[in-house]
Amino acid sequence: MKTEVSFCLEDYLKIKKQAIDAALEQYLPGPENYPPLIFQAMRYSLLSGGKRIRPVLCLATLEALGAESLQESVLPVACALEMIHTYSLIHDDLPAMDDDDCRRGIPTSHKAFGEDIAILAGDGLLTEAFCLLSNRKLLVGIPPERTLAVIHEIAMAAGCFGMIGGQVVDVRSEGMTVDETSLYYIHTHKTGAMIVASIRAGALLAGAGSEALAALSLYGHNIGLMFQIVDDILNVEGDKSTTGKSTGSDASRGKITFPSLFGVEMSREKACALAEQALHALSGFDRRTEPLRMLARHIIERKT
Amino acid sequence: MKTEVSFCLEDYLKIKKQAIDAALEQYLPGPENYPPLIFQAMRYSLLSGGKRIRPVLCLATLEALGAESLQESVLPVACALEMIHTYSLIHDDLPAMDDDDCRRGIPTSHKAFGEDIAILAGDGLLTEAFCLLSNRKLLVGIPPERTLAVIHEIAMAAGCFGMIGGQVVDVRSEGMTVDETSLYYIHTHKTGAMIVASIRAGALLAGAGSEALAALSLYGHNIGLMFQIVDDILNVEGDKSTTGKSTGSDASRGKITFPSLFGVEMSREKACALAEQALHALSGFDRRTEPLRMLARHIIERKT
Repeated sequence: MKTEVSFCLEDYLKIKKQAIDAALEQYLPGPENYPPLIFQAMRYSLLSGGKRIRPVLCLATLEALGAESLQESVLPVACALEMIHTYSLIHDDLPAMDDDDCRRGIPTSHKAFGEDIAILAGDGLLTEAFCLLSNRKLLVGIPPERTLAVIHEIAMAAGCFGMIGGQVVDVRSEGMTVDETSLYYIHTHKTGAMIVASIRAGALLAGAGSEALAALSLYGHNIGLMFQIVDDILNVEGDKSTTGKSTGSDASRGKITFPSLFGVEMSREKACALAEQALHALSGFDRRTEPLRMLARHIIERKT
Repeated sequence: MKTEVSFCLEDYLKIKKQAIDAALEQYLPGPENYPPLIFQAMRYSLLSGGKRIRPVLCLATLEALGAESLQESVLPVACALEMIHTYSLIHDDLPAMDDDDCRRGIPTSHKAFGEDIAILAGDGLLTEAFCLLSNRKLLVGIPPERTLAVIHEIAMAAGCFGMIGGQVVDVRSEGMTVDETSLYYIHTHKTGAMIVASIRAGALLAGAGSEALAALSLYGHNIGLMFQIVDDILNVEGDKSTTGKSTGSDASRGKITFPSLFGVEMSREKACALAEQALHALSGFDRRTEPLRMLARHIIERKT
């Protein structure tokens, strides 16, 4: 007799987050190294309790393709994704960019350590990500050409044709009239590119074929955009005590967002349509994609 | 009859610099891409005529080991080294760091493009370096595990145990009493680490054995420290019209340097001793190391 075990996303996320947090703690050198200040600053931002969405997506994709036995070897890649995400937050928060004082409920890096160290902590996390990705002692059992493909995928997504490109258009369009095309560009690049890369990295490491890779990329594209629309909505309606960010900060700096262009209601509809498309992209996969499906639903319902 | 051809470093450097500049121009995307501003900013700093010491060292090491036939495939690595160097200069010049207005005789990135874009142009160059390093279409004929070793080498040298570590100690010791140990730490990390990595990258790509690698690393360590001592001396005695930097800027911001700790004369003696040690490290190699030997002499005599 086969017993149907119901899947609980909350438990799944908790277990994955624990594994990721432990790995981050292990892979990022501590302040017993010299100079302590830079390690303190990097750890302050990296270990301050993010949702770890990108690493979770990477590991869930690995599982979706039946390669969870590789999880130990893929954890360094998952951690590198989180390091790159954290570096981008530290630099985004700088006075010359978004000038934010508060992130994840605590003072931003430049508020805690000064602007010079915040810039260097961001640089350090970005560089450390590539140290990890190229560390063959950690990525046991992954063929080197596959590792290289993953490094290229992640570097391209983090670079000027991806996340940095999105950030440039974002910072330079504050207070300007921005059309729908630019808004899509910003969201699909600033947030979307690294979300897609997190999924593709997991797929490449699992040895996915081109068809599976295309379907998973489409899933990633849809949830990436959806994630950012939900973020925009939370910035209008969210509660600082749960989001850790100031509500209305986008509007006060004249930032173009989905709610400012389409209103909250239509933005929510768009997010729901994207969730449907994300689930549809997974229709050819078996039940091992359940975590990815649940994650799509989770992202749209998130409150933080 | 065998004809002895005398080696001219000036011609050698000119030819290498041309190859490197052409490759940089080719590998760094142009402002026909979107968003143009970031590509303009990256190219502004990268293509403004540096000496290309790091890429030259990488290529000269390749030649020293008889592997110059690989030059085309190694040029992307050489370019990545220069991109990382340029990113570090852009971030070093920022108001929160050294606050310099002038670099290589032209306004610094933040003066030309604003602080936000300067930060992002630095981030972009660092990331682009890893795109290049992991691009298998360009690194033709290099075994993937060798490429991974080079990426790891460069990432470690650019990170918190290398260049960034040196920069942290440097920015946080301005105006303070710094001892000789800290001064050595700053110079061997802030400048030295990437110079050593440039040489080791060339050696690894040429397939050097551990003995050759150790000797070349020692050469690199010596010329790296020597390079920075000469830089310090030029900051005291140099001519802005040739160095492109403000003379005396280190002293005016209370920065600890070799001349401030030992005086110009003893600093020069230390640099000469390091040059001797660098040449000694190469004593087991044949005449194909002539460019590396000449480079050591060149660095100590440089005026810019």
